Amino acid sequence: MTSIRKRSKKAGLAPGTLIHMGRDKAGATRVDMVFYDETHLEKHPVGTLDQCLIKKGAPGVTWVNVEGLSDLEVLRHFGSCYGIHPLVLEDILATDQRPKAADYGEYLYVVLKMIALDEESAEIKSEQVSLVLGRNYLISFQEGLEGDVFEQVRARLANEKARLRAMGPDLLLHALLDVIVDHYFLVLEQLADRIEDIEDELIDNPTTATVQAIYGLKRQLLFLHKVFWPLREVVSSLQRRDSQLIQDTTVIYLRDLYDHTVQVLDTLETLREMLSGMLDIYLSSVSNRLNEVMKVLTIIATIFMPLSFIAGWYGMNFKAMPELDWPYGYPAVFVLCLTIAGGMLVYFKKKRWL
Amino acid sequence: MTSIRKRSKKAGLAPGTLIHMGRDKAGATRVDMVFYDETHLEKHPVGTLDQCLIKKGAPGVTWVNVEGLSDLEVLRHFGSCYGIHPLVLEDILATDQRPKAADYGEYLYVVLKMIALDEESAEIKSEQVSLVLGRNYLISFQEGLEGDVFEQVRARLANEKARLRAMGPDLLLHALLDVIVDHYFLVLEQLADRIEDIEDELIDNPTTATVQAIYGLKRQLLFLHKVFWPLREVVSSLQRRDSQLIQDTTVIYLRDLYDHTVQVLDTLETLREMLSGMLDIYLSSVSNRLNEVMKVLTIIATIFMPLSFIAGWYGMNFKAMPELDWPYGYPAVFVLCLTIAGGMLVYFKKKRWL
Amino acid sequence: MTSIRKRSKKAGLAPGTLIHMGRDKAGATRVDMVFYDETHLEKHPVGTLDQCLIKKGAPGVTWVNVEGLSDLEVLRHFGSCYGIHPLVLEDILATDQRPKAADYGEYLYVVLKMIALDEESAEIKSEQVSLVLGRNYLISFQEGLEGDVFEQVRARLANEKARLRAMGPDLLLHALLDVIVDHYFLVLEQLADRIEDIEDELIDNPTTATVQAIYGLKRQLLFLHKVFWPLREVVSSLQRRDSQLIQDTTVIYLRDLYDHTVQVLDTLETLREMLSGMLDIYLSSVSNRLNEVMKVLTIIATIFMPLSFIAGWYGMNFKAMPELDWPYGYPAVFVLCLTIAGGMLVYFKKKRWL
Amino acid sequence: MTSIRKRSKKAGLAPGTLIHMGRDKAGATRVDMVFYDETHLEKHPVGTLDQCLIKKGAPGVTWVNVEGLSDLEVLRHFGSCYGIHPLVLEDILATDQRPKAADYGEYLYVVLKMIALDEESAEIKSEQVSLVLGRNYLISFQEGLEGDVFEQVRARLANEKARLRAMGPDLLLHALLDVIVDHYFLVLEQLADRIEDIEDELIDNPTTATVQAIYGLKRQLLFLHKVFWPLREVVSSLQRRDSQLIQDTTVIYLRDLYDHTVQVLDTLETLREMLSGMLDIYLSSVSNRLNEVMKVLTIIATIFMPLSFIAGWYGMNFKAMPELDWPYGYPAVFVLCLTIAGGMLVYFKKKRWL
Amino acid sequence: MTSIRKRSKKAGLAPGTLIHMGRDKAGATRVDMVFYDETHLEKHPVGTLDQCLIKKGAPGVTWVNVEGLSDLEVLRHFGSCYGIHPLVLEDILATDQRPKAADYGEYLYVVLKMIALDEESAEIKSEQVSLVLGRNYLISFQEGLEGDVFEQVRARLANEKARLRAMGPDLLLHALLDVIVDHYFLVLEQLADRIEDIEDELIDNPTTATVQAIYGLKRQLLFLHKVFWPLREVVSSLQRRDSQLIQDTTVIYLRDLYDHTVQVLDTLETLREMLSGMLDIYLSSVSNRLNEVMKVLTIIATIFMPLSFIAGWYGMNFKAMPELDWPYGYPAVFVLCLTIAGGMLVYFKKKRWL
Ligand SMILES: [Mg+2]
Ligand SMILES: [Mg+2]
Ligand SMILES: [Mg+2]
Ligand SMILES: [Mg+2]
Ligand SMILES: [Mg+2]
Ligand SMILES: [Mg+2]
Ligand SMILES: [Mg+2]
Ligand SMILES: [Mg+2]
Ligand SMILES: [Mg+2]
Ligand SMILES: [Mg+2]
Ligand SMILES: [Mg+2]
Ligand SMILES: [Mg+2]
Ligand SMILES: [Mg+2]
Ligand SMILES: [Mg+2]
Ligand SMILES: [Mg+2]
Ligand SMILES: [Mg+2]
Ligand SMILES: [Mg+2]
Ligand SMILES: [Mg+2]
Ligand SMILES: [Mg+2]
Ligand SMILES: [Mg+2]
Ligand SMILES: [Mg+2]
Ligand SMILES: [Mg+2]
Ligand SMILES: [Mg+2]
Ligand SMILES: [Mg+2]
Ligand SMILES: [Mg+2]
Ligand SMILES: [Mg+2]
Ligand SMILES: [Mg+2]
Ligand SMILES: [Mg+2]
Ligand SMILES: [Mg+2]
Ligand SMILES: [Mg+2]
Ligand SMILES: [Mg+2]
Repeated sequence: MTSIRKRSKKAGLAPGTLIHMGRDKAGATRVDMVFYDETHLEKHPVGTLDQCLIKKGAPGVTWVNVEGLSDLEVLRHFGSCYGIHPLVLEDILATDQRPKAADYGEYLYVVLKMIALDEESAEIKSEQVSLVLGRNYLISFQEGLEGDVFEQVRARLANEKARLRAMGPDLLLHALLDVIVDHYFLVLEQLADRIEDIEDELIDNPTTATVQAIYGLKRQLLFLHKVFWPLREVVSSLQRRDSQLIQDTTVIYLRDLYDHTVQVLDTLETLREMLSGMLDIYLSSVSNRLNEVMKVLTIIATIFMPLSFIAGWYGMNFKAMPELDWPYGYPAVFVLCLTIAGGMLVYFKKKRWL
Repeated sequence: MTSIRKRSKKAGLAPGTLIHMGRDKAGATRVDMVFYDETHLEKHPVGTLDQCLIKKGAPGVTWVNVEGLSDLEVLRHFGSCYGIHPLVLEDILATDQRPKAADYGEYLYVVLKMIALDEESAEIKSEQVSLVLGRNYLISFQEGLEGDVFEQVRARLANEKARLRAMGPDLLLHALLDVIVDHYFLVLEQLADRIEDIEDELIDNPTTATVQAIYGLKRQLLFLHKVFWPLREVVSSLQRRDSQLIQDTTVIYLRDLYDHTVQVLDTLETLREMLSGMLDIYLSSVSNRLNEVMKVLTIIATIFMPLSFIAGWYGMNFKAMPELDWPYGYPAVFVLCLTIAGGMLVYFKKKRWL
Repeated sequence: MTSIRKRSKKAGLAPGTLIHMGRDKAGATRVDMVFYDETHLEKHPVGTLDQCLIKKGAPGVTWVNVEGLSDLEVLRHFGSCYGIHPLVLEDILATDQRPKAADYGEYLYVVLKMIALDEESAEIKSEQVSLVLGRNYLISFQEGLEGDVFEQVRARLANEKARLRAMGPDLLLHALLDVIVDHYFLVLEQLADRIEDIEDELIDNPTTATVQAIYGLKRQLLFLHKVFWPLREVVSSLQRRDSQLIQDTTVIYLRDLYDHTVQVLDTLETLREMLSGMLDIYLSSVSNRLNEVMKVLTIIATIFMPLSFIAGWYGMNFKAMPELDWPYGYPAVFVLCLTIAGGMLVYFKKKRWL
Repeated sequence: MTSIRKRSKKAGLAPGTLIHMGRDKAGATRVDMVFYDETHLEKHPVGTLDQCLIKKGAPGVTWVNVEGLSDLEVLRHFGSCYGIHPLVLEDILATDQRPKAADYGEYLYVVLKMIALDEESAEIKSEQVSLVLGRNYLISFQEGLEGDVFEQVRARLANEKARLRAMGPDLLLHALLDVIVDHYFLVLEQLADRIEDIEDELIDNPTTATVQAIYGLKRQLLFLHKVFWPLREVVSSLQRRDSQLIQDTTVIYLRDLYDHTVQVLDTLETLREMLSGMLDIYLSSVSNRLNEVMKVLTIIATIFMPLSFIAGWYGMNFKAMPELDWPYGYPAVFVLCLTIAGGMLVYFKKKRWL
Repeated sequence: MTSIRKRSKKAGLAPGTLIHMGRDKAGATRVDMVFYDETHLEKHPVGTLDQCLIKKGAPGVTWVNVEGLSDLEVLRHFGSCYGIHPLVLEDILATDQRPKAADYGEYLYVVLKMIALDEESAEIKSEQVSLVLGRNYLISFQEGLEGDVFEQVRARLANEKARLRAMGPDLLLHALLDVIVDHYFLVLEQLADRIEDIEDELIDNPTTATVQAIYGLKRQLLFLHKVFWPLREVVSSLQRRDSQLIQDTTVIYLRDLYDHTVQVLDTLETLREMLSGMLDIYLSSVSNRLNEVMKVLTIIATIFMPLSFIAGWYGMNFKAMPELDWPYGYPAVFVLCLTIAGGMLVYFKKKRWL
């Protein structure tokens, strides 16, 4: 999950040098394309990239989705066709990018993390998504993890009456960002479930494994903080209407999205504070248990040490020990021991140790 | 109390899609309506919503209160009658909304949490309230929890001489917000009572249950922080006179309300710091008790271990142990033991362990 | 000291409703009045409030001091005579007000806490003071605690040559605020003394009572933080020359006052950080003591357990134990025991436990 | 070192009342004067202050240094000669002043703390310095501690070719501030040495004295924070060119000084974080030692308690104990004891307690 | 690594006095020079500095690299040739400079730390680099540590087609800053590796050495924070286009660099939070182990103390102890002991101590 292991390959290279920093197992690069306007919708995968896919100034919206970044030629193709700056291409490849939005006049570049749940392992799968918004197109670059969270957007596009169909690529940008943020909630909900499970464990039977689970969750939340926090600024900058590529009618949707990102951060903050509180609970519970253990030990020792001494005393082999010969010596010692034990118990009762 | 379990249903849906996220047991949607001006007051429940309830530009003030959000048709009715944006309707339904105020020109949308005390369980009941302020109307949408905190406002409206009767719906908005914030104080006062109870417990007889109570309160205060904190910004934005729907004479009342929200936050902050301090007290008290327990154990062991050794020593069966035959051997050992025990006690006295 | 127990009475009332929230034992409301200009000074208590005390536009300065808020008629009198807004009157009565300053054009409203030391109990007495500054008058409303900190200002007024006499009511406002802030220093100095006492205690002989004293002081400082912190903003806003009621020659005095409030906060912050450090000291000292105790126990047990075992061993009643019959068996065991004990002592010495 | 013990004397006095709050042992007030321009330099002590020392508009620079504040007449002299406001005179006397700079048009007032090392006790000596910069003069008021850190500036002035000689009093102001800040570094360096010593102690042999030393250093750094922090704002305001008394050529030097104050704060912050870390180290080291102690105890007890029981068992005096008569009973018990002890040791080895 | 030990030498000196504060072992000062434009590239070391190396207004770019600061004449040479202010020269020598950028019109001064990994000791080597950017030149001053991180930039310059060759010295400035920041990532990656190693150790077998390693890393990260944090502001100010020395085409590269510095800080922050969490883990693990140890002790003591007492009891030498003569006395005691031990085990099982 840590994203701090890749940059060094690039030390000292010229800016804009394209080097693949992403997942080693990333499969081949696949490109597919959807063209739509209010009346038409065409989908098709793209094989070879001989010529530029989208004509400048053509009507309708074209959404090109690039899955996997291992084929650098594909990137170069888009760079030369749409005038994307080498530094942006480099950012698309640098898959530990901090979320950001940058306006390059002709196009808008947005980069963020797409997060989804692995159904089996319940682990967080994180994939970098770069979005390039042009006047009549949107290109999405995915780092290459199998699948994405865009299925519902594709379904909405298929619906002829959907608002998306009637609007420009900026609303498609919103739709993609929105579904990505919606999945942040999904992940947070699952983490909240796990936190509640650990909370129960904490009260019933805390172990070192519980602490490690808390610690593991803390690091996951730390990772999510790094992913979520800059997004707030990203969405905020998008809805500030600076770019001509974002229409006024879209701004209200971006404001709604901004609300969601703030809420994601609020929820995350709540989870973090809950975890902090749980460590305190754990430590106080460990202290309590130590107290319990030590009380048992002390009670036992405080009762039996004097008794054992008495028994040892009358086990001495001195010739002259008159008590040993007394007829009531033995029962007297018995009574003495009972008295001592009883007195101790009363004393502990008073101290509320029992 | 956690509000992090609902959003995922909506992942990927088109913005403005109305889906009920609220309480499962929310009863039927009930609508009632109050019309008033300086001379008249009419109240009546509303049955079917065939036509729009309020005429544009009509004199007087109409307050429509909607209790329960399960009937989506009711929402759609208000949406089409008063031109409320689908995103606002969606926000009304999304009952985990962060408090906010948004100006849509024709109307002002305010959403916040109404909090009340459950008299029996002393638990916090939280319900989302959305307020839509128009030129001659105010519509309040309640999430659907039985009852509300508005009774006193209704009583004031019934009084012909009340200032509320002579003014526009913006002062009604203030009155509703004001009574909601007043109830925040009520809740904080009760939590303060509980904190003081726990404080006494902490000094008299702290147990693990005490820590869990502190932890529970911490989470309640965390929840309240999430509810109260954004309200400050909400009220501040309302009194900044940006909206034409808020008259100048109302601004002074909103400033007063702003003071109250700041004070709510101050009080909350005080309670939070008190709780933090209590955890420290608890931990130091647990440490102290452990010290007490260990001192008792150590004193007993330090006195009786040497004595037991001496007794054991003269319980050995060596043939040749001259002391055993000495006439004063037994009393000498007795004196030796007394001396050791006494010396130990003096030593502990000096160390202030006794 | 907590000021979180009074607001709920007012839940839902119309803004401006006058309800007494102050101290239950507050005595009757007393009003006294001082009129002064460069040449004259007249003091007299005020009995019945039939007509307005101060004429609009009259020369000289009138200072009306109201002690105690139980008589709501007195408040209403000032409200109607000088056009004080009902919300301000409500704020005067709401004795848990956060310090603030508000400009109402015709008059300036300042509210803050007056703090003094109870000579006997060394407890902090806090009383709310509301100051209404008009063009030729200043009205001070005190919550009703016996006495105030204004005696020195009255003495300065009695002196014909005092600068105060030659200036307007705005300099009187400064004088009252200044003496109130001066008494904040007094309270902080006494708390600093107590903190130093506890510090000594912490090193000599820390007990649970010490922790509770630290905790109590922490809460007092928390209370003072709530009282002092908003004052900085209050004084800062006064010296920003916004109000026409504050003359240019007074601004320099308000800047001086601002310095003092900043210094009060600095001093408070220092005391708070000192207290935090003291809790750390306490906890580490408790841990140390536990270590001491456990070392003593371990040393005793480690020496005497093997010895006791040896003694027990030769106390066994086996028929065939050749050592028992050896002539040097007993002294040999004696030497063995000495060797073990000595070895243990050397071992502990090495480990620096002794 | 705490500066929170003096203000109360002044409670309620008129602003501008001159009262000496400084060190009780402050000796007599001494005044000396240096006049210089590019070609001349004259130094002489000043005896009686009959007439004003510096003529308005005279060429060259006059630096008057006042050591000790016990003679209030001296202050009044400068007040009347150079039109210094009574509030400024009061600030000069109030030796717990927070560092600040204030522009009074005709003159600029700067107050800060001069810090030096006591060579013998290695303690921090702190003295308040007030600087009044006029058009052709600079007056420095020292609280009265023997000596100052200005010797190097005097030496530079004596050098005819020094830049200082050719410039106005504003560069002299810079020189004095600069040498004061340079001595802040000196103090921080010595504290850093002490922190490193304590660090070594912490690893070798931490005691309660170590914690108290850490705590003492923490308070010293807290004091320095209070002294250094406001200076940043002071120097920043000086170089913002607002005042006509500061020439453009001097601004670049003030910027350099600003860099130094920022660096002083950075270094201070580093030391503070180091100290925080050391407390954590200490606490974890104490916990570790407790663990060590308890392991020794537990190992000894776990081995010898069963053995002692066995020895005690065969020390029972039952008539019918067949084992006692067996020929190999004694060696069998010996073997049994060895086995138990060995088993325990293996068990502890496995648990890594040994 | 601490950089708080050098400033005091300079206390009180005139600003601009050149004094060497750097590494004692810094070797001789070496100067080399590269001249390049689109078609030519000339490299040569520089021996004596008789005359100025770069002509004002000459075409092409000259990069002068100065390694080592021990020869103050070299600094003075550059000062007089290119009009570099004495305060800047002083800053170049003051090798504990906080990173900053300052615009002096004719040239731009940037100072920061170059960090590299020592391959053998895996320690951080830090060296101050000062960069002076003129219209047609860039001078880099290195503190004097053997080698630098600029090799890759030199290699790029050697390539005739490199963008660097076609642009001005401002892009060279970017290239040097960029490669320095790239090496920050390298260092952070190695520290991340070490943190992960310690993390494993923490779970397997935490010792005091682990805490010291955590503490050591904390201090390294604290040092890096001091180095990295001001850089953000430095790069941000460079790309704000204020200086005429930075061309518009370079700004986009500086923005990219800004992203990198933000990411460096993010990564650093993540590492710091990870370390904090690890200390918590360590402390809770130490507490757990203590609990484990104490449980073993308590179980053993609780079982064997009563048994030993019983054995001791029947080892008493009273004449009249009827049980000793009973035929089933011995087996009865045996059963009693078994019952007690078994009961205890059941009890501990129930308490989940076993
Ligand atoms: Mg690069
Ligand atoms: Mg980049
Ligand atoms: Mg994918
Ligand atoms: Mg959404
Ligand atoms: Mg952050
Ligand atoms: Mg928040
Ligand atoms: Mg949606
Ligand atoms: Mg919404
Ligand atoms: Mg309801
Ligand atoms: Mg209210
Ligand atoms: Mg917050
Ligand atoms: Mg506050
Ligand atoms: Mg704040
Ligand atoms: Mg806050
Ligand atoms: Mg009210
Ligand atoms: Mg109010
Ligand atoms: Mg009073
Ligand atoms: Mg004052
Ligand atoms: Mg604060
Ligand atoms: Mg401060
Ligand atoms: Mg005063
Ligand atoms: Mg002052
Ligand atoms: Mg002096
Ligand atoms: Mg300096
Ligand atoms: Mg501060
Ligand atoms: Mg200097
Ligand atoms: Mg400098
Ligand atoms: Mg080098
Ligand atoms: Mg880079
Ligand atoms: Mg910093
Ligand atoms: Mg961040």
